Amino acid sequence: MARQIGKEFMEQTKYKFATPSDQARGLPQPPVEMDIGNPGLVIDLPDHGAWQADISLTQAILQRTSVRTYAAKALSLTELSYLLWCTQGVKSIEPHLVTFRTVPSAGARHAFETYLLVNQVDGLEPGLYRFLAVDHQLAKVEVTGSAADIITEACLRQKFVKASAVTFIWTAAAYRMTYRYGQRGYRYLHLDAGHVCQNLYLAAAAVDCGVCAIAAFDDDKLNAALAIDGDNQFAVYVATVGKKA
Amino acid sequence: MARQIGKEFMEQTKYKFATPSDQARGLPQPPVEMDIGNPGLVIDLPDHGAWQADISLTQAILQRTSVRTYAAKALSLTELSYLLWCTQGVKSIEPHLVTFRTVPSAGARHAFETYLLVNQVDGLEPGLYRFLAVDHQLAKVEVTGSAADIITEACLRQKFVKASAVTFIWTAAAYRMTYRYGQRGYRYLHLDAGHVCQNLYLAAAAVDCGVCAIAAFDDDKLNAALAIDGDNQFAVYVATVGKKA
Repeated sequence: MARQIGKEFMEQTKYKFATPSDQARGLPQPPVEMDIGNPGLVIDLPDHGAWQADISLTQAILQRTSVRTYAAKALSLTELSYLLWCTQGVKSIEPHLVTFRTVPSAGARHAFETYLLVNQVDGLEPGLYRFLAVDHQLAKVEVTGSAADIITEACLRQKFVKASAVTFIWTAAAYRMTYRYGQRGYRYLHLDAGHVCQNLYLAAAAVDCGVCAIAAFDDDKLNAALAIDGDNQFAVYVATVGKKA
Repeated sequence: MARQIGKEFMEQTKYKFATPSDQARGLPQPPVEMDIGNPGLVIDLPDHGAWQADISLTQAILQRTSVRTYAAKALSLTELSYLLWCTQGVKSIEPHLVTFRTVPSAGARHAFETYLLVNQVDGLEPGLYRFLAVDHQLAKVEVTGSAADIITEACLRQKFVKASAVTFIWTAAAYRMTYRYGQRGYRYLHLDAGHVCQNLYLAAAAVDCGVCAIAAFDDDKLNAALAIDGDNQFAVYVATVGKKA
């Protein structure tokens, strides 16, 4: 029988096994956003005032379904900006301390960095981008080869990744969570990613888009595609978005 | 240094370590809902037609915040029914095979059984209940002592559990997920619980309620309070709900 690592994880992350967290030990807190280093192209996203998107909450919830077939239509940058705001938008920030966002996060740790595979968004060259949540910007991430092909391959060749207008990839900067919660924080990273993805499902309906969440991916290939180490930072969840066919 | 069980879990649940799932091996599928045995009191919940609740999706998302202080006001049974529908409502069912619900779930596995600590809901005696999603009913679960006290204690004495009108407790019937996905399914249980909780946050706004998610609980005490074994079935996530003060 294979090792029951899921069961072990649930057992060993019970509070009775918790050791003092780095926060409890007085270590310095990690930053609320990973440094972008020397960015190339950085795009300012349209702000709140530009959004007209809305829908009835109850209708959005009742009608939600996973959509894997998309029209060959682009999203506008305003629509993409709305989806980014609804999933990870920073409503307020206490510098170097904490962000408050449109989604809940355990202890407001907000450990995610969002990457986008852009296939069809007006005004954006196709490719890989990172969302800079604090400044509501996108930074282009240079990739050797076709980002769409590489990420589709990493998502076990699920072809709707390549057919999507944009694919969201939520990565965890794990220490932002484990700093406070230790190894139990790995539970919370997944709970938090579920919050984010659910908002994407619902918000997408307001811009006439469908969504399909993807948790079946090749971790190593996907992390490599994003040029992240897979240890301190790793992909947690993926979702495709496209205009409804 | 403490064991890095979270890191180990992420590593060992990569696809390259996957063994054939029980589904792939042709084993019989578990039922879509756990048997209630010989229930005592069972309450039919109001159905769709009874709900007037709604709100703008964008407003619900933008205004969301975690609320830990509640008015001493009861929820109506219609409001509770709406929240249960928005979080785990069964839209359609293929008998003995699969349910389609108001939330997404990996492979439509929908591995949750929802328990409610009812403190203040019109028409319901305070205590512990289980939601029977397929028939949209509540079944009373008999508890020795005060369910509110026991569950508040299990939630590390966070007093807003006892002060809530109702507290949702999502438990995983793990094999419903691992049957298809093996140990990687433990990731998906948490992702799925995040979807569910996010819908609760948003839907609660439509019935003038606030929500606070709780992932910090004593697993053993909480599972014992629900009379579940903590192995085949265990609590994944908790959220309090109450009328806004």
